[in-house]
Amino acid sequence: MPQSLKPKIVFIGAGNLATNLAMALFNGGYQIIQVYSRSQVSAGNLSSKVNSPFTTSLKGIIQNADLYIISVPDKAVREVVEQMPLNKGLVVHTSGSTDISVLSKFGVNGYGVFYPFQTFSKNRIISFENIPICIEASNDDSYNKLYLIASSISNSIIKMDSSTRSWLHLTGVFTNNFTNHLLALSQQISKGKGFDFNLLKPLAIETIQKAFDISPANAQTGPAIRFDIDTIKLHVEKLKEYSPELADIYKALTLSIQSSIHKED
Amino acid sequence: MPQSLKPKIVFIGAGNLATNLAMALFNGGYQIIQVYSRSQVSAGNLSSKVNSPFTTSLKGIIQNADLYIISVPDKAVREVVEQMPLNKGLVVHTSGSTDISVLSKFGVNGYGVFYPFQTFSKNRIISFENIPICIEASNDDSYNKLYLIASSISNSIIKMDSSTRSWLHLTGVFTNNFTNHLLALSQQISKGKGFDFNLLKPLAIETIQKAFDISPANAQTGPAIRFDIDTIKLHVEKLKEYSPELADIYKALTLSIQSSIHKED
Repeated sequence: MPQSLKPKIVFIGAGNLATNLAMALFNGGYQIIQVYSRSQVSAGNLSSKVNSPFTTSLKGIIQNADLYIISVPDKAVREVVEQMPLNKGLVVHTSGSTDISVLSKFGVNGYGVFYPFQTFSKNRIISFENIPICIEASNDDSYNKLYLIASSISNSIIKMDSSTRSWLHLTGVFTNNFTNHLLALSQQISKGKGFDFNLLKPLAIETIQKAFDISPANAQTGPAIRFDIDTIKLHVEKLKEYSPELADIYKALTLSIQSSIHKED
Repeated sequence: MPQSLKPKIVFIGAGNLATNLAMALFNGGYQIIQVYSRSQVSAGNLSSKVNSPFTTSLKGIIQNADLYIISVPDKAVREVVEQMPLNKGLVVHTSGSTDISVLSKFGVNGYGVFYPFQTFSKNRIISFENIPICIEASNDDSYNKLYLIASSISNSIIKMDSSTRSWLHLTGVFTNNFTNHLLALSQQISKGKGFDFNLLKPLAIETIQKAFDISPANAQTGPAIRFDIDTIKLHVEKLKEYSPELADIYKALTLSIQSSIHKED
């Protein structure tokens, strides 16, 4: 659709997700007509990237936009909503763990959730093409509007209710935060023991590829699933000397792998 | 070098690593002149793939090969070595956690370690091109032979002693086994809560890419590192209802993420 017919958007928030989403929409031809952040630096940075004015006051949010995207830390959504003035547009948040009902004060014009399921950083602008976008809306008209916008930047749109989305978000913690932490622990060891962390990259890539090709249950290898007690003991002893905390993580995950087999018996 | 000059190889073992390595060498023009496995099925399967005879008796291993690759489970290496007859070739094992000295009985002709750092499955034959191969040898001549072979199938050859290799192997458990298990737990939740596990794939891929691009310490996001107590509590409560074991894993890894920040203060 021509730019003049595309919804005009206000971004409330200028963090990692907001920055990536605003850039994707801006590059997709949408007009971002205002950016709010309580931080002047953040608001200024994002607004300069998407060629829009900004405000640092929730009361200063303009009221005639078509779409308001609240993309602030999960714990701040409720407070932001309370302080936002009513408006004439559709209001959505982008939080995985926050119920749609937090937006009910915007009931008249519709409200919804627009949740791109990915890890974002401000200084790493990534393509939305393959990012699943989970949509929920208070009515069909709002849903259709959100679907149109989502499908203009991504190939993967999923209708998902708040409860399911909160579980998806939780698996994101396992898949991203915890996996990244295992890499951080590995990097810590590589530094301490004098080998290049990049040696782990082909293994890490193949781990993901294999898990999604043949399912993680079928992809599991290593001492835990083989019940290779000698190697496990050796590893725990080495880790105990190096870092008792790492030894505990090792033991907990080894037991969890072994008990997951048990469950399939 | 022409095939006639390439070392003739005996494979002792026909498991996941042995199968992938034998195929890579066979496809690289090496002659596999015998495969040993105590399992007739495994020995037969691999030998048919690399066009070689096989034996199921360690005493039946021929003695005039140039290279013997012992690729059996870590816990079986010592026993296999004890039972193997002496021979005229170079003997290596492929075990990350086993010291080179286990091979000292083969001292006359040289011995070594040839450790491809990757996760392998028999039914998933992968390219060795980017797989780091860690080499260690009892003398320079043996090292040079192994280097030549490794560099004919991979671009990434690393000289590494047994102690460092054992730590690399241990980080492999974190990077592969434990990461794969986090995906298995995520898949378990996706099945229980009715969303497609494949929604996690773009996130999992970006997690790895980002960690190696900007380092995992810089890539960490999510409730743990933000000390977002509300979301963490919500997650733990949800998990407790769903599976107390998952809640424990969640808590342990969250604490570990948080304590790793502390250490950098």
